[in-house]
Amino acid sequence: MNQLIRVNLNDGSIIKEKMENEYLRKGGRALTSAIINGEVEPQCDPLGEDNKLIFAAGLLTGTGVSSSARLSAGAKSPLTGGIKESNSGGIFSQIMVRSGIRALVFEGLPAEETLKVLVIDGNELALEDASYLENKSVFETFQSLKEKYGEKAGIVCIGQAGERKLPAAAILSVDPFGHARAMARGGLGAVMGAKRIKAIVARDNRDVQVEPANAAKLKELRKKFNQMVLEDPRLESRKQYGTAAIMKAMNSLGAMPTRSFRQGSFEHIDNISGEKLHDTIVERKGKGKVSAPCMVGCLISCGNVYPDTRGEAIVSTLQYETIVLLGSNLGMDNLDDIALLNKLCNDYGLDTIETGCVLGILMDVGMIEYGDVEKCVEILKEVASGTPLGRIVGSGAAVTARVFGTIRVPVGRNQGLPAYDPRALKGNGVTYITSPMGGDHTAGNAFGARDKVDPLGKENQVELSKGLQVDCAIVDLLGICLFARTPVAADMGLVADLINNLLGLELNKESIYDLARETLRLEEEFNRKAGLTERRLPEFFYKEKLPPHNTVFDVPQEEIDNLQLG
Amino acid sequence: MNQLIRVNLNDGSIIKEKMENEYLRKGGRALTSAIINGEVEPQCDPLGEDNKLIFAAGLLTGTGVSSSARLSAGAKSPLTGGIKESNSGGIFSQIMVRSGIRALVFEGLPAEETLKVLVIDGNELALEDASYLENKSVFETFQSLKEKYGEKAGIVCIGQAGERKLPAAAILSVDPFGHARAMARGGLGAVMGAKRIKAIVARDNRDVQVEPANAAKLKELRKKFNQMVLEDPRLESRKQYGTAAIMKAMNSLGAMPTRSFRQGSFEHIDNISGEKLHDTIVERKGKGKVSAPCMVGCLISCGNVYPDTRGEAIVSTLQYETIVLLGSNLGMDNLDDIALLNKLCNDYGLDTIETGCVLGILMDVGMIEYGDVEKCVEILKEVASGTPLGRIVGSGAAVTARVFGTIRVPVGRNQGLPAYDPRALKGNGVTYITSPMGGDHTAGNAFGARDKVDPLGKENQVELSKGLQVDCAIVDLLGICLFARTPVAADMGLVADLINNLLGLELNKESIYDLARETLRLEEEFNRKAGLTERRLPEFFYKEKLPPHNTVFDVPQEEIDNLQLG
Repeated sequence: MNQLIRVNLNDGSIIKEKMENEYLRKGGRALTSAIINGEVEPQCDPLGEDNKLIFAAGLLTGTGVSSSARLSAGAKSPLTGGIKESNSGGIFSQIMVRSGIRALVFEGLPAEETLKVLVIDGNELALEDASYLENKSVFETFQSLKEKYGEKAGIVCIGQAGERKLPAAAILSVDPFGHARAMARGGLGAVMGAKRIKAIVARDNRDVQVEPANAAKLKELRKKFNQMVLEDPRLESRKQYGTAAIMKAMNSLGAMPTRSFRQGSFEHIDNISGEKLHDTIVERKGKGKVSAPCMVGCLISCGNVYPDTRGEAIVSTLQYETIVLLGSNLGMDNLDDIALLNKLCNDYGLDTIETGCVLGILMDVGMIEYGDVEKCVEILKEVASGTPLGRIVGSGAAVTARVFGTIRVPVGRNQGLPAYDPRALKGNGVTYITSPMGGDHTAGNAFGARDKVDPLGKENQVELSKGLQVDCAIVDLLGICLFARTPVAADMGLVADLINNLLGLELNKESIYDLARETLRLEEEFNRKAGLTERRLPEFFYKEKLPPHNTVFDVPQEEIDNLQLG
Repeated sequence: MNQLIRVNLNDGSIIKEKMENEYLRKGGRALTSAIINGEVEPQCDPLGEDNKLIFAAGLLTGTGVSSSARLSAGAKSPLTGGIKESNSGGIFSQIMVRSGIRALVFEGLPAEETLKVLVIDGNELALEDASYLENKSVFETFQSLKEKYGEKAGIVCIGQAGERKLPAAAILSVDPFGHARAMARGGLGAVMGAKRIKAIVARDNRDVQVEPANAAKLKELRKKFNQMVLEDPRLESRKQYGTAAIMKAMNSLGAMPTRSFRQGSFEHIDNISGEKLHDTIVERKGKGKVSAPCMVGCLISCGNVYPDTRGEAIVSTLQYETIVLLGSNLGMDNLDDIALLNKLCNDYGLDTIETGCVLGILMDVGMIEYGDVEKCVEILKEVASGTPLGRIVGSGAAVTARVFGTIRVPVGRNQGLPAYDPRALKGNGVTYITSPMGGDHTAGNAFGARDKVDPLGKENQVELSKGLQVDCAIVDLLGICLFARTPVAADMGLVADLINNLLGLELNKESIYDLARETLRLEEEFNRKAGLTERRLPEFFYKEKLPPHNTVFDVPQEEIDNLQLG
């Protein structure tokens, strides 16, 4: 039986609901957004009792196809004030689904401040005291929970940032190597903190095992899907360089945020490129690793473990967005510094993108020197200890800019921008201000279409973004990784068949597209009611020219205003 | 000749424009809002080059009637994100008007960070270097500028909060006794700071003197108006107790914010009442004073100078809003502590209402103990020195609540609430969320109508607020003090005649009402374009019952949504 679990924090009750068609046919972002739009008062305070925090498996999770176990978290965002979904790899979703649970919904607010952990153990669910985890970092929490619930347990948790309800707080999920994967964006960690849930543990209990609707057929389809993943010509590059494969291309494009969005390329690119990352890991050996999967059964394995000079692991996975936001954006000219900052963000439970934007602002206003990694470390530690400066940093880029009186605030709908400057990759600018998700590249990234639509031109950016936003919604509701979307794009009928043979549904190719469009429509509806309707970038993107192309964001506002998603 | 002066900070040019009918017939808030709506891009960054900072004399300023020299400041607010006007007493407006200037408009942004002072000396205007005033407090600035430009100069300036562009920064104006009067609300001091204008000085140059259209007639009308002011039955109470006259009544009403809006009345009311204020001043003698006017020629003189035990002046004027927000709201049980905090706010250039809300939040989350004045002093000093905590405090209540992760944020449209809890004086709640000015009692205060509309009832609150908002707009465009509105309400024809004989216009009673409604309409239009349309109080006002009446804010949302101003 596929269930949706409701955890009511007002009274501590846990209710199991059999998922009916209306919710069962939705997964990942489609499900989190449907529940938020249907059940959450749009004008509620994101940290108040009327918000809900939802975790949902994607529709493909459980089919066993490669890269299909991304876990979606959703809530009204304390950062954007709108609906939000953020997803990540990790082992949690597969174990949850195996236990017959496809979604968890946390509702209400507890009367007491005491932290709790939700433990899933096969058919058993319990809210247990977690006061011993108070003020514990993410890795301390992983460690402590593994000792208690087993090495193979799936764990989702928050760090100090989430406990403090800071709007840059992420939710972290443990991966097969014990490293952390982040449902990073939109401050969902703060919602978890407000609900006083420190962690969710899914024990690796094999006594309970949900059977697919048609196991034999599923196996056959899975093979077909996986074969297509393996035949993707980009597979090898992704294995070797991961998301960082695009660094040099982005730098050449002149859209790579550098020194708090003052430049679009970085003179030290060779020190922080995907190639440098790969070679450093290979040279240093030890615990370093290229091709590390973030979930069981991934055939792509784009991840890595970045080691220090002695071969000890610093962080996994060093990715493109982080290398830019905590790297070129901060004037950091080497991967070791970036890896260190990344590790601290993961450990304290902070979104690296948002945090990179924040530290960039602090550098831009002269609080920190560009490239001063020691000072950055010091400040990140303050997030953990909760000083006023730490709290500002954890509150995200928009708040930091306001507190420090600068108009150079790199956000879209209040969310720190990812590693594509909207002045030189204008399709992304459209996404940042029209996506219900705000400034988020995973909602529609124009980089891949740079040969089709001139990244510097005004034309066709809105149409481009619209199409990409539908594509991304599909990926997000399937629980599939963007890197495995080739078979999805090539054969949506196959995708529908996979889901049908897992869940006993009768979807077809068109119904998946419909679901994506419906999701966008519900999200826009929620945001309209919540008052999140502004479709403008901050002023400086329209006025300050970005070198080397010296362009500003100038996609016609009327076109942007007329864009209808969903 | 009545002029409007444009100071362009991009190039430092100063242009004198003869005021034509369209602008001349507007004054105070009507003029600032007309210029903002007509000339400012609604979506601009409040701290950016497209915002304008406007100072305007009221329509009655220059007639010489009592209490008619309030100066309006206006801009797009960095606090609310909407249009804003804030006005205060002080001697500046009378001197400016005498020099033939009815409005000043600061436009653009200077390329350099260096502070400037605009000096008005009869017909001469000059932007002078003010780098010697950097980081100087308001009183240091008054002192320094008086030494340079004469004891009788009118001065308008910002303190450290404004220099740092903090959204709780006020603009202060010197009064006849050298004390400070605040254009407090909406963070207009931050806009002045962004434009790098530390101060404006109007020298007391009697060589230039603008003649009224009909001096003789004006004199006759003035006498009539002033007689009505003197015959107001509330005159004596206001002379003796000032705005604090209402303290006990508000406490009895149960709507007086106490301990960060957790209670509506305060057990130490007798220690901080208007009577206690009066008696303490009278007892202590020395520089203490009841009945101190904030502008030349005021017949009401509601102000006071509050002395310490040795008779040295601490602050002028200790007023109702400040006594509550920095007093009962912080659990301060004596006027000396409140006076000290008020003085520091004035000196650093902070809005006492916003600051009181902020300190209340810090107490509510446990950062400060209730009543701990030393800690409050320490924190206010941090605003001046610019520490991270100081910057948070200077950023206002909404930012502080977010940074400290609490949903108990007492704001209306992002602005800290004045001293009337919307759960027990519900008409004010309507004003806080429907006024273009946001959470501001001067935009429409239902306290005076408490015998007509039950403050605790749901009924008629929206109609009440609407009427009050028009009345307040009239007062704000005339430049008249709320305490002198009796003749305005009684004989609007007289008011029109006064203006006509001063400015050579042909207004009538109806045209003043029309102007007020037009002002509200323009303000709403600007806010709509700027995206400030939300009409909701923060969640806790709907959920948390306020003792002693245990009521929540429950005015029907539909009625609120349907309210049309102007």
